[in-house]
Formats: sequence, structure tokens, C-alpha cells
Amino acid sequence: MDYIKPGQVLNQMVEAGAVKAGLSRMNMVVRGALAGAILACATTLAFTTVAQTKLGIAGAVIFPVGFVIIVLLGLELVTGSFGFIPLAVLKKKASMGQMLGNYFWVILGHLLGCLVYAALYGLTVTKMGTDMTHPLAQTLVQTAEAKTLAYRDMGGEGMALVFIKAILCNWMVTLGAVMAFTSSSTLGKIAAMWLPIVIFFGQGFEHAVVNLFVIPAGMMLGADVGLADWWLWNQIPVLLGNFAGGALFTGILFNLSQRKSSRLNSGNPGSPLARSDASAAGKSA
Amino acid sequence: MDYIKPGQVLNQMVEAGAVKAGLSRMNMVVRGALAGAILACATTLAFTTVAQTKLGIAGAVIFPVGFVIIVLLGLELVTGSFGFIPLAVLKKKASMGQMLGNYFWVILGHLLGCLVYAALYGLTVTKMGTDMTHPLAQTLVQTAEAKTLAYRDMGGEGMALVFIKAILCNWMVTLGAVMAFTSSSTLGKIAAMWLPIVIFFGQGFEHAVVNLFVIPAGMMLGADVGLADWWLWNQIPVLLGNFAGGALFTGILFNLSQRKSSRLNSGNPGSPLARSDASAAGKSA
Amino acid sequence: MDYIKPGQVLNQMVEAGAVKAGLSRMNMVVRGALAGAILACATTLAFTTVAQTKLGIAGAVIFPVGFVIIVLLGLELVTGSFGFIPLAVLKKKASMGQMLGNYFWVILGHLLGCLVYAALYGLTVTKMGTDMTHPLAQTLVQTAEAKTLAYRDMGGEGMALVFIKAILCNWMVTLGAVMAFTSSSTLGKIAAMWLPIVIFFGQGFEHAVVNLFVIPAGMMLGADVGLADWWLWNQIPVLLGNFAGGALFTGILFNLSQRKSSRLNSGNPGSPLARSDASAAGKSA
Amino acid sequence: MDYIKPGQVLNQMVEAGAVKAGLSRMNMVVRGALAGAILACATTLAFTTVAQTKLGIAGAVIFPVGFVIIVLLGLELVTGSFGFIPLAVLKKKASMGQMLGNYFWVILGHLLGCLVYAALYGLTVTKMGTDMTHPLAQTLVQTAEAKTLAYRDMGGEGMALVFIKAILCNWMVTLGAVMAFTSSSTLGKIAAMWLPIVIFFGQGFEHAVVNLFVIPAGMMLGADVGLADWWLWNQIPVLLGNFAGGALFTGILFNLSQRKSSRLNSGNPGSPLARSDASAAGKSA
Amino acid sequence: MDYIKPGQVLNQMVEAGAVKAGLSRMNMVVRGALAGAILACATTLAFTTVAQTKLGIAGAVIFPVGFVIIVLLGLELVTGSFGFIPLAVLKKKASMGQMLGNYFWVILGHLLGCLVYAALYGLTVTKMGTDMTHPLAQTLVQTAEAKTLAYRDMGGEGMALVFIKAILCNWMVTLGAVMAFTSSSTLGKIAAMWLPIVIFFGQGFEHAVVNLFVIPAGMMLGADVGLADWWLWNQIPVLLGNFAGGALFTGILFNLSQRKSSRLNSGNPGSPLARSDASAAGKSA
Repeated sequence: MDYIKPGQVLNQMVEAGAVKAGLSRMNMVVRGALAGAILACATTLAFTTVAQTKLGIAGAVIFPVGFVIIVLLGLELVTGSFGFIPLAVLKKKASMGQMLGNYFWVILGHLLGCLVYAALYGLTVTKMGTDMTHPLAQTLVQTAEAKTLAYRDMGGEGMALVFIKAILCNWMVTLGAVMAFTSSSTLGKIAAMWLPIVIFFGQGFEHAVVNLFVIPAGMMLGADVGLADWWLWNQIPVLLGNFAGGALFTGILFNLSQRKSSRLNSGNPGSPLARSDASAAGKSA
Repeated sequence: MDYIKPGQVLNQMVEAGAVKAGLSRMNMVVRGALAGAILACATTLAFTTVAQTKLGIAGAVIFPVGFVIIVLLGLELVTGSFGFIPLAVLKKKASMGQMLGNYFWVILGHLLGCLVYAALYGLTVTKMGTDMTHPLAQTLVQTAEAKTLAYRDMGGEGMALVFIKAILCNWMVTLGAVMAFTSSSTLGKIAAMWLPIVIFFGQGFEHAVVNLFVIPAGMMLGADVGLADWWLWNQIPVLLGNFAGGALFTGILFNLSQRKSSRLNSGNPGSPLARSDASAAGKSA
Repeated sequence: MDYIKPGQVLNQMVEAGAVKAGLSRMNMVVRGALAGAILACATTLAFTTVAQTKLGIAGAVIFPVGFVIIVLLGLELVTGSFGFIPLAVLKKKASMGQMLGNYFWVILGHLLGCLVYAALYGLTVTKMGTDMTHPLAQTLVQTAEAKTLAYRDMGGEGMALVFIKAILCNWMVTLGAVMAFTSSSTLGKIAAMWLPIVIFFGQGFEHAVVNLFVIPAGMMLGADVGLADWWLWNQIPVLLGNFAGGALFTGILFNLSQRKSSRLNSGNPGSPLARSDASAAGKSA
Repeated sequence: MDYIKPGQVLNQMVEAGAVKAGLSRMNMVVRGALAGAILACATTLAFTTVAQTKLGIAGAVIFPVGFVIIVLLGLELVTGSFGFIPLAVLKKKASMGQMLGNYFWVILGHLLGCLVYAALYGLTVTKMGTDMTHPLAQTLVQTAEAKTLAYRDMGGEGMALVFIKAILCNWMVTLGAVMAFTSSSTLGKIAAMWLPIVIFFGQGFEHAVVNLFVIPAGMMLGADVGLADWWLWNQIPVLLGNFAGGALFTGILFNLSQRKSSRLNSGNPGSPLARSDASAAGKSA
Repeated sequence: MDYIKPGQVLNQMVEAGAVKAGLSRMNMVVRGALAGAILACATTLAFTTVAQTKLGIAGAVIFPVGFVIIVLLGLELVTGSFGFIPLAVLKKKASMGQMLGNYFWVILGHLLGCLVYAALYGLTVTKMGTDMTHPLAQTLVQTAEAKTLAYRDMGGEGMALVFIKAILCNWMVTLGAVMAFTSSSTLGKIAAMWLPIVIFFGQGFEHAVVNLFVIPAGMMLGADVGLADWWLWNQIPVLLGNFAGGALFTGILFNLSQRKSSRLNSGNPGSPLARSDASAAGKSA
């Protein structure tokens, strides 16, 4: 059946990292733009849900719709790649330059997609800029300020705080990307990747791509946030924290967790578990 | 298993566009009529849900029931086709004339189906026209006015607003149609296509086929909306916006997002991912 | 995988109609009795849900449990057959006499099953007739009166109203039965058939088999409804409306929607879609 | 795929009845004890849910967790067997003595499992007997009294009432056990068997194994119920009613509903449906 | 299909116990650390859910997200192993020393993972220690005190109480780990293992790994709990109770429940059930 064992999941992570590192620039920008806009659209849906139900957890339960579309359609999400490409680099399947190239072009795509959606969505909730009373307009302004000014006001501690929230966030986001590899069935992938995304969104951690939409959208709607506030007190530390969380907590640690086991299995080819591992590998390869 | 990779999804989109372009007029009208009526019936269910729960998101979560029936039974929804037939035209698998023919006959079918359902449903909620107190009667009247008069009163900005809402709407609707191709399993299709439909309905974007029911239904129930208000300030700009959203954001951009990748795969026939792509293609073809 | 394409679904509908038309009387009565009692039991569960939550939509979401059991266990529901046997008659796979025979014996079974359940359930909610305060006793009495006296008081318009509600109801119920054919997987069938049943129950349309339970149950519990009120102002027009909705909207129109397409496919045996259609047919036949 | 047709489901019911009748005493007692304790644990979860949400239906929706574990792990539930072993006896695949033996040892196991869980759970909710304020302690006491004293106070009518509630209950429970046979997939089984269990629990019918926990648990916590009240006014009539409901409504009637049909199929080996029936049989055998 | 029969599930439990007993120290520590941190992160999500909805059952329904990630990614959870390794020791597939070694290194990993997450999470909810008003900070402090001081104040009875709660807890947790073996499909595994975890969390039983996070997190946030309170009045008795519940109620009893049955099957190789058992075994091995 469709369940894929951890050893094989690790191989898929490395392989996916290598493929992502070798994409054309066009692919990276377009996939990044689509992914950014879809994630932004899921974010406004989740905020709408919270505004209507007054329950943060209801927004978290519905938020993964965007992530699922992105992963199933093979688009590029830089936060997800933070868990895969470093592993491919480590295993000599990709170069450091390719990794940085992927990050640059995909983030550029995210920025384009998020800004276009922010502009279009901002025009609809404000009725072409004529009416600021829509609850989502207020939500976006307040969230943009909370995600920048609040950290700035705390100084160095604010910088540490946003960095820790970014680590925790992307530990979960990359787990979501990994969980999608545990199944070769569409519904299995959907259910498996849904879970970690609920966990991160439900607890208010910091996600770089969500912020690439929320902060400029809030700025367009009148948030008192400058370009430096956005990048210095949120976007840059969040990207770094997301990278740390994805590369370390998921990439390196999951690799360590499986290393010996794969050696063991290849040493005991006759054991039933090793055999079924191999057949699973054969099935999904 | 049933997951279908993005490259193969793109092929299916083009193929589906070609098949849709080549349908007989009878097929197009009947499939369009059934699809229109089913979507209308799902709309009244969603409005009922909102009226009972006072939560727009609850209506959005239940609304995709109609879209799912339409897609699984192979009926025609013009908004979905906006994402496929232009791609088939682009790839020379269908002519521009066939595309416009499909749109004309399918929209005619939608109109027939929506008007019949509007008449029958209107008679039931008003007890054969004798009682206007049913909450859904009020909902339909108010929605019809909000979807026409409100834009008219804004003038040119209203026209831009309804056009933007139509773009955003059908970007998601066509993603729903695309997501159905990510699985060869019925339940996988249901779950995958459910997601983008929730996103659009939950945020109040403008969908041409829903409006082909809601506005005339409201008019039959006494909304102060004229034929010109309906078509000029809603139906025509919404159809154009839906086309733009579907053809551009989904058709063209998803095509661009995959183009290089399929060349790469065919260039590296020995890589595991390319192989599994091929086997997935073989499985689903 | 388990998804079954529309052309093949149509073949299964005809085949199912032919098999149903050829069942023995014993099979028809027993299957009808079990189906009637199970649908009645699901109805009391749905009414209980509405009484506890005050949300009609919550009852609608849970009501399909009975329909699903009936379909998966291959029992007979006359409203479902309204969508299949006329098609089999049309395609010369069954005779008109067989069709009417099936309807007669299955409805007889429904009546038996519903009356037995009505008696047993009525005894439990009234504590053997000693206590009328249970909320479900009141619900059943009021529903029985609303489904008969209210139409009678409207005269000819009431007759038209109940007929229209019956058409809309069974359009959806037969779509539920059709949707079950879109998958060869149990869970796929459950999910697919759930949807149209939620749609009809959530909007208060008129279903002949539900009424075969609700009205006599209400009468046993003291509703001021006579035998003539029951049959003349509800049961007979609802059966006719259910037949019209099932045979016309689903049977004939779905047949029309697929006719050309199957000719096209057999004319283009080399196209990828035709091939996958054929393999799907081979898989499920 | 995993859907199993009704004729084959009937064969599996008979086969399962024969296997159950031939189990060793050790197997029957241990499986019965585990099943009793798991069902009891699901009951306290459902009561907790009702206490928190004030919605009986919420408890009903969550209650099947225990039944599902029992069925998937192949444990013994006497109420489920009431639908299978009589059928095996009827088909000469088991003897009456084996049937009664199974019932005796499995009920003994249920009693052991339920009493152990009642003792352990009672100690935790009362903090080792020092604190009776926990809402579940009150729930268990009141339920135990309502399930015994209330019937006793009604005399003969109470006896009839509890018997009818037990028939209706186990008609549904055995349908749950039958529905598990409609799929060879774990998730298909879970979904299919969930449905009838929600129906019975949501309507407050009487289930012998649930009562083997609830009544003694209530007694341990101070319910004013004697051993005779428990067995005479609940446990014995409920066991008999459960047997009647399972053996008659499900075992005999489902058998009757399928009898002719299987003859027909073997008489028409060339028809597509008969063929697919046979292939389904081959697949699952 | 993907359903795996009980006899084969038992074999997988023993095999899994043997594999776990033979892991390298590195694997055990890293897998334990990741599992501990993931479970801790799911715990704060569940507490957040309860704080927002005021419904304990809502937290219980969402809590299994962590357990599911841990099991699907093949990480190590000592409470789950309590149900498998003793069985492997019993069947001579692992030594007592290996079992204790696994427990020691995995618990060490859990402690590391839980402490790191407790520190990071504690910093975020208190804004780097500057603000104690976040509801989760209060929840963690109060829970830590309730899980230690409350038992200490009861003396010997408190010790018995915490031990019983730990037995009941891990009976369910190990059932969750066993249920994951009933399917070879990812979604089947997810659904099957979700159920017992809801049961334990919904009823407030005591889980050693959850406590390895909750108690030190509460202590860091100011709970008046000493190291001796933590280990003596909670961690040690809970570990022992979890072991007793897992090894006895699940390991030994499930083994007993299946023993005869597997002998029977091998004695009747010609019976359909035995055959399908064997084919299931072949399919999953």
C-alpha cells in the first residue's frame, strides 16, 4: 500500500533537495510566485475564519489548505526547501551555490506573488480603497504592526524572540513537507502534511512567506511600519530562524535519526523488515 | 498509488481542454444545465447554513458539495474550462473557435439550469409565492442587490472591484479543477478539489455560474435589479474576470511552472524521480 | 485506482436498473423493509440532532448515515430506483411491468419496515405510551402535521408545492445513488454519496420513504392527520414528484449528457482519454 | 478496489460466526475482557464529552472509537456475535452448543474487563474514594439508576420498554459489525462501522456490554441499585433483546434479503454484475 | 487491500520490539529527542485549544497530531515501546538488557527534547521572560502543580492514584501504537492510531513523556515544584504505571487473545479465513 517507511522518506528528501537545486530560474520564480500567492490567499481565509469564530484554533485547522495545494502541485516554498536542500548539499547531491540560488529566486517569486495578491486583496476588502471598515483590513494592519513594531520595541530581546518563533515555526513546516513523503496516495499526503501545519499556525509562530504577504499588505492598508521595520525586525531574522529550524531540527536531526537504521537494514537483508523496506523503496522509486 | 505528479497533471489539463472543446452541442448544453442547477442547489444549501449558524465559513466549508458532484460526474462548468481550453488552444489541441463555441453553449446550459432551479426553489421558499418571510428569500434578494447595485453605485471603481473579485475567484476555482487531477482515486479527488473551493467561497469572491443563479433568483423574488444591472454590472465583468483568472493565473502560470521541469526529466531518464514520473504517467494514461 | 468515469457510471446505472427489475418478490420486500426501517432510524437520529443543536444543518450532515448503510448493503430504496429502472426500460434491459412490480413490492416493504420502526420507536420515546413529554414525540407530531395539513390548507397550490419539493428532493437522492457508482472503494462510495443527501435534507425537500415513517409515526403519537391527508396530500404527490425528479433530472438528463461522449470515445480509440476510459471500464467490469 | 459486495458480505458473516464458535475458552475470555474494558473506556470518554458539551450527539459521534478498536483487533463482542453465530448455526457451520458456549465465555470476559475498568476508573474519578464531586461520578450513578430503577418502577411495561430498546440497539450494533465487512481497507472499515454505532448511541438504546460497565460502576460509586435490580430489570432483558435484534433483524433478515440474489447470479454467470461479484469474491477470499 | 489481520499485527509488534531493542544509542537518543519535542509541541497546541474553546474534548481530538507524526516517521516513544519490547523479550527476540538499554537512552532523548522545547516555548509565551500574562503560562504552571503537589498532599493514596492513571493512560497509548499496525496505508494508520490517543487525553490520564515536558516547563515558569516532587510523585510512578499498562494490558493480553487463533489457522490451512490470513501476511511482509 501507500505507506512509505522512514528510510525511504529520507532518500526522497535528499532527492527532492537535489531536484529543487537544479531547477531553472523561470521555474523557481513562477513556482515561488504561485506558492506565495496561494499561501497568502490561505492566510486571508484563516484570518477570516478567526474573525468570524473568535477561535484561533479554527483558523489553524483551515490554514493548511494553501500548503497542501502548493505541495501537491509541486510548487516551490522556500521554507520547505530549508529542510531538503541543505541535506542534498550535505550528501553532495547539490552545491552550496545552487542552494543559495534556489533560495534567492524562490524568495523573489514569493515576494512577487505576495505583493500582487496583497494589492488585489487589499483593493477588494477596502472597496478600491474607499472603505476601511472591513474587519480583515483591521486584522492585517494590526498583525503587520505586531509582527514588527512589537519586536523592535523590545530591542535585542525582541530579535531573539522573533528568531526563536521562526525556528519553532519552520521545524513544523518542514515536518509537514516531510510528512507528505510518507504516502504515495494523494489523500494520505493531504492528511499527513496537514498536521504539522495546524500545529505551527495554531501557536502563532513566525513563517517567512506568510510574513512576505501580511506585513506589506498591512503597510498598504496603513500600518505604521517602515521598510526597515519589516526587513530588519521580521523578514531577515525570520528567514534565518526558519532556515535554522528546517535545516537543523528536521534536515540534520531526521538524517541522524535514520542513519544507523539504514546501515542495519542493509546489513540484515534477510530480515522481514529490511525486505519490506526494500519493496517499499522499489514500489515508490 | 493514486497520486499524480505535476507534469502529468499538466498533460491531463491540456487533454481535458481538448476533449471539452470537441464535445457535441447537446452534450455541452445538457452538461452545462445540470452543472448550473447543481451549483445553484449547493449555493442555497450554503446560504441556509450561513443563515442558521451565522458563520460565513460554515457555508464555505459545505459549499463544495456541488462542485464535487459536477466534476466527478464529468459535467461542464465554464469557469473550470477557463483554465483548460486556453491551454489546449495554446498547445494547438483545440481551435479558438471551438473554445468560444464551448463557452457559448455551456453558458447557455448554465443559464437554463440556473433559471429552472431558481424558479422551482423560489416557489418552495415562498410557498408558491404566498409568503416572503423565509430567511432564504431575503438572503437571495439582498445578495442579488449587493452583487449588482452596489457595484453600479461605485461607477468605474465598482467595475474594477467586481473584475478583481472575479479574477481571484476563478484562480481558486480552476485550481480546484486542477487539484482533481492530482489523484486517480475518487476520495483523493474529492478532498483535493474541496480545498480551493472553500477558499474562494469563504472570502466572498465573484463566481459567474453562482451569479447566473443568485441574481435572477433574487430578481424573481423582488430584488430591485434590472436586466442591465445584472449583465452590465456583474455577469459580463465577472465572466471576463473569471476567464482572466483561470486562463492566466492557472492555465498560463502553471504551464510555465512546469515547462522546464518536463524538459529536465526527459533529459535525465535515468534519475529515480524521472522514472517515477514516467511510471505515474503510464499508470494514469 | 478506484475512480470510475462518467461513461462507465452510466453503464452501471442501466445494469443496476436491470438487476433491480429482475429481483424476486421476497428480495424486494425484505430489502425494502430493511431499507425503510434503517432510513427511519436515521431520521430519528437527525431529528434528535436538530433538537439538541437547534441547527437544521447539523441534522442534515448526519442524516446520510442511513442512506449509506442501505446502498453499501445492497438494499432497495424505491427513490433511488426511480433514477435507474426507467433508464433500463429505455435501454430495453427491463420491461415496464418489471419496473412497476419492483416499485410496488419495494414500497410495500418500505411501509412494513417504517410501520414496525414507528411502533417500536414510538413506544420507547413515550415510555410505552405513558409519557408524551419527550421532545422527539413533539417533533414527530408537528412534522407529520406540517407535511400534510399545511399543504391541504393551501389547496391546489399546496399540491403543486409538495410536488415541486418532491422533484427537487429526489433529483438529489438519485444523484446520491449515482455518486456511489463513481468509486469502487467503500470509503470513496461513502463520501461521494453523502454529499447529495446532505443537500436535500438540509433544505427540507420531500422524500417519500422518510414520509412513510414520519407521517404514520406522528399519527400514532396523536397528530391530527387522517389516512386521506397522509396519502392524498403527501404520499401520492411525493411519490410522483420523486419519480419525476429521479427519472427525468437524473436518469434522462445524465443519459443525454453522456450519449455523444461515449460515441466519440469509441470513434477515437487511439486517444489517451479513450484508452484510460476503456481501462477503467475493464477494471470495474 | 476494497468494496465488498453484499453477497460476499453474507458469506463473511457466516464464516466469522463459525470461527467465533470454534475459539478456545482462553481466547474467548481474554478477547471478551479486553473488548469489555475498551468499550467501557469509550463509554466514559463519551460521557465526558456529553458532560462538557451538553450535547448527547457529540458523545454519540465519538463513542464508536471503542467499537472500532475492538473490531479491527479481532476481539470478541457478544452483541456483535448475536448477528453472526445464529447464522452459522442456521447454515450448519456451528452447533447450538458452540454458540451458547461462545456467549457464556465471552460474557464472562466482558464482566471481568468491565469490573476491572469500573474499579480503576472509579478510583481515579473519586481520587481513591475521597471525593465524589467529579461530574462523571454523578453521571455514572444517575445512569445506573435510570437504567434499572426507572424500569422496575414501571413494572411489566418497564420490562417491555427495556426489551424494545435492546432490540433497536443491537439491530444497529450488528449492522456496524456487518458494515465492517463491506471493505477490505482499514479506513473503509472504520468509516463504515462508525455509522450504525453513532445511530444507536445517539438515541439512548440499551447495549448489554455498555451496561455491564455502567451499572456496576454506578453501584460502586453509591447508586441505590441492588444485584437483582441490575440483572432482572436490565442485564437479562437487555441480553435477550440484543440477541433478538441481532439474530432476527440483522442475521435472518439480511440473509433473506440476499438469498435469491445469489441464486440469480450463479444462474447468470455471463452478466457483468455476476462476473464482478465473482471477482470481488476472489479478491477478498 | 491495506487491512492487516490481528494475527499478523501481533507478529509485527514482536518484530518492532526486536528492531527497537537493537537500535544504536545514537538512533535511540535522537529519535527520542525528536519524539519528545514533537509530543511537547502537540501538548501546547492541545492546551491552546482547550484555553480557547473551554472544551477539554476539543484538545483531546487535536492532541494526536504529535503521536501520528512520531509513529509515521519511525521515531521512538518509550511509552509505545512498553507494549512491544517486553513481548519481544518474551518471544526470545530481544534480551532484557537490550530492553532496559532502549528505555534508558530513549528516555534520555525524551528529556533532552522536552527540556529544549520547554525552554524555547517558555521564552516565546513569556516574551523572553518579561511577561507572565499569557494564558498558556498559567496553564503550564497549574498543570505542573496539579500533577505533583496534589498527589504528594494525598500521601500513599496519591501514589496509588497516579499509578492507576498511568496504567490506564498507557493501555490506550500502546493500543494506539498497535492500531497503527492494522493498516499498510498511511491514512489508515493515521485514523486507526488517532482513536486510542483521543481516549486517553480526553480523560486526563498520566503519560510519562507528556509529563517530561509539562512539569519542567511549569517549573521554569515558576511552579512551586521541586525536583523530588517531579520525579518522586509523578515521573517515576508514571513510568512504572505506563510500563505496567503497556506490557500487561496490551503486550501480554493481546498476545493471549491471539495465541490459540494462530494455532487454529495453521491447523486449517484450507479454510478461506486462514488462506486470506496468509495472503495478508504475504502482502505485508
